[in-house]
Amino acid sequence: MSITAPQGFRAAGVTAGLKASGKPDVALVVNDGPLAVAAGVFTSNRVVAAPVVWSRTVVGDGVARAVILNSGGANACTGPDGFADTHRTAEHTGAALAVDFGDVLVCSTGLIGERLPMPLLLAGVDDAVAHLDADGGAAAATAIMTTDSVSKQSHVPGAGWSVGGMAKGAGMLAPGLATMLVVLTTDAVIDAERADAALRAATGTTFDRVDSDGCMSTNDTVLLLASGASGVEPEPGAFEAALAQACAELARQLVADAEGASHDIAVTVTGASSEDAAVAVARAVTRSNLFKAAVFGNDPNWGRVLAAVGTVPESVAPYDALTLDVAINGVQVCRAGGVGEDRTLVDLAGAREVQVLVDLHAGDASATVWTNDLTHDYVHENSAYST
Amino acid sequence: MSITAPQGFRAAGVTAGLKASGKPDVALVVNDGPLAVAAGVFTSNRVVAAPVVWSRTVVGDGVARAVILNSGGANACTGPDGFADTHRTAEHTGAALAVDFGDVLVCSTGLIGERLPMPLLLAGVDDAVAHLDADGGAAAATAIMTTDSVSKQSHVPGAGWSVGGMAKGAGMLAPGLATMLVVLTTDAVIDAERADAALRAATGTTFDRVDSDGCMSTNDTVLLLASGASGVEPEPGAFEAALAQACAELARQLVADAEGASHDIAVTVTGASSEDAAVAVARAVTRSNLFKAAVFGNDPNWGRVLAAVGTVPESVAPYDALTLDVAINGVQVCRAGGVGEDRTLVDLAGAREVQVLVDLHAGDASATVWTNDLTHDYVHENSAYST
Repeated sequence: MSITAPQGFRAAGVTAGLKASGKPDVALVVNDGPLAVAAGVFTSNRVVAAPVVWSRTVVGDGVARAVILNSGGANACTGPDGFADTHRTAEHTGAALAVDFGDVLVCSTGLIGERLPMPLLLAGVDDAVAHLDADGGAAAATAIMTTDSVSKQSHVPGAGWSVGGMAKGAGMLAPGLATMLVVLTTDAVIDAERADAALRAATGTTFDRVDSDGCMSTNDTVLLLASGASGVEPEPGAFEAALAQACAELARQLVADAEGASHDIAVTVTGASSEDAAVAVARAVTRSNLFKAAVFGNDPNWGRVLAAVGTVPESVAPYDALTLDVAINGVQVCRAGGVGEDRTLVDLAGAREVQVLVDLHAGDASATVWTNDLTHDYVHENSAYST
Repeated sequence: MSITAPQGFRAAGVTAGLKASGKPDVALVVNDGPLAVAAGVFTSNRVVAAPVVWSRTVVGDGVARAVILNSGGANACTGPDGFADTHRTAEHTGAALAVDFGDVLVCSTGLIGERLPMPLLLAGVDDAVAHLDADGGAAAATAIMTTDSVSKQSHVPGAGWSVGGMAKGAGMLAPGLATMLVVLTTDAVIDAERADAALRAATGTTFDRVDSDGCMSTNDTVLLLASGASGVEPEPGAFEAALAQACAELARQLVADAEGASHDIAVTVTGASSEDAAVAVARAVTRSNLFKAAVFGNDPNWGRVLAAVGTVPESVAPYDALTLDVAINGVQVCRAGGVGEDRTLVDLAGAREVQVLVDLHAGDASATVWTNDLTHDYVHENSAYST
């Protein structure tokens, strides 16, 4: 189901041979309309892959009819030749679908700095077109996986319409997205402006608040396609809420499947002077290798939380260090900047999910950022990935 | 030798029982004058340990006669009681040495959020006073070790005077220093103003450019004591150069001993519009867990270097992503933002030191930041540290 659950979409996932493993590596999503509304949010990295440059332009007019995605190669840092490869992929896909190639979005994921094997990829495009199916969502979700251990899908029903989604990503998950490719679909009747606003709002509080390893990718792309096939225009707020829920579900699945992780860590900052301040403090904690390694060791090392909180400049997040409270899985291990409850009361060994609550006592705003622990398996996967 | 190599200093390192391991844990450095000039640089963390609060005040007037240091406990996040412990340590040391306790600097390192066992510590102070020796530098350097595998010392001779130093630190090494305690001594004749200026300049290009794991400590302290015992006032620049060299030697030793590291990585950014821009770009690379894990796997994954470079805002470091060059150990693996020499030409397996050179082609400034690879042993040491 997922991306093909809303009406008006077909999808496919096939094996083109881009991956040495022989697993599926090309996915195609087609919007059969009647609308061809599209919106996109991309990595804020200044070093961007060719498909990001291409897709940013395609989505600029709010119109797109298809998305062609490949795993097995990021097509990043490949220069003008790499951009020509992306262009040719869009042309080939457009021709095969009989749509304007300027309405074909392209996404790639995999190793940076390698050209794509174009004959294989273009043959894969043909194969994907041949396999397009109104039930093809799951196959597409599988074909975009890289180090993911499971495919990620979501489906949120509305009143006569729905939102579907698929995602890949299991590392290099950082603010301003991740090595994350996400396609969201809806059969609701919305225009490009509403699609864009809803997508930016939804990603801002979901994918933007997942940070597995502090590393921002060159390829992050989140796309929304609206077919209007339900004929229903959602009430104000209703579509936005469903889209945000679909994004939140996918983001949570990304965290749960992060490379080598043994704990999912939710860092919630309350009592902040602003939401931005809360996010900045939470992000500082989610970036602390020392704290994340401690969680791997089932050690509720709150001193490392405070050390991370202390790195945020006062201009960003005002607070008094002598009033900081920290609770870990409900145990108030730090009170007023000093020792609180006995840390041995926190049992992390039996918990996949770790809830860290930091109260700044400096206002009413709050935010949550998700991360993972830093494990032997993370090091292993990321030291062996390209070799 | 080290800190007791310059004339006018005595030191000691003893075992007070603060560490479960039974290793030395209390060090004392005494300046016998005739001058009692002191300067200090401290962590920029907003969450600071009690000894940092105390020592900042002590050094405020440019005068100090002794430094008492302990490993086995950071005395951070310990509230007013923790500060009282530091105060009492200074009083006890001052009384034992017959100097004003307001001229006694205090440093602590170890686990955050635990009170120090004061009876043991104060008995250790007495023992250290009893063992003060003009050759006690090495013993002191050993007593401040935590997860360090070796003690760190340096000695830089001048014209009739010299600079000595000792350091501890093996993790939580980050900008704005590290969990780093450093004591530098000199018998040169300098005043407090010169001492302060020289120390800030030296730390700014040495300890501030070591970043093992992006984690900033609550206890970082670098102290300089000048006895004037040589009777020689160094020429302008001579003392500053020697101090910078002593700091550079200690910083390099810290990198070489970073927790669990198998490679030392020097990230040099050239062609930057300013030194600050070069430092910002270099720091982004040294903070990339993905790149650091790749180096552990002996993988010259330059795509991860570019992905990290791309996270630096244009307002901080102007450059054109399509002109970026990256060389790793002399092999130009990335040219003009794209694929350069064959990455397999880079042999990291046989090299402890990895030289990453990023040319921004945007100016004439350059800077180097040191870090380490991200290894299984880093995760192991930091997941098991407090338990």
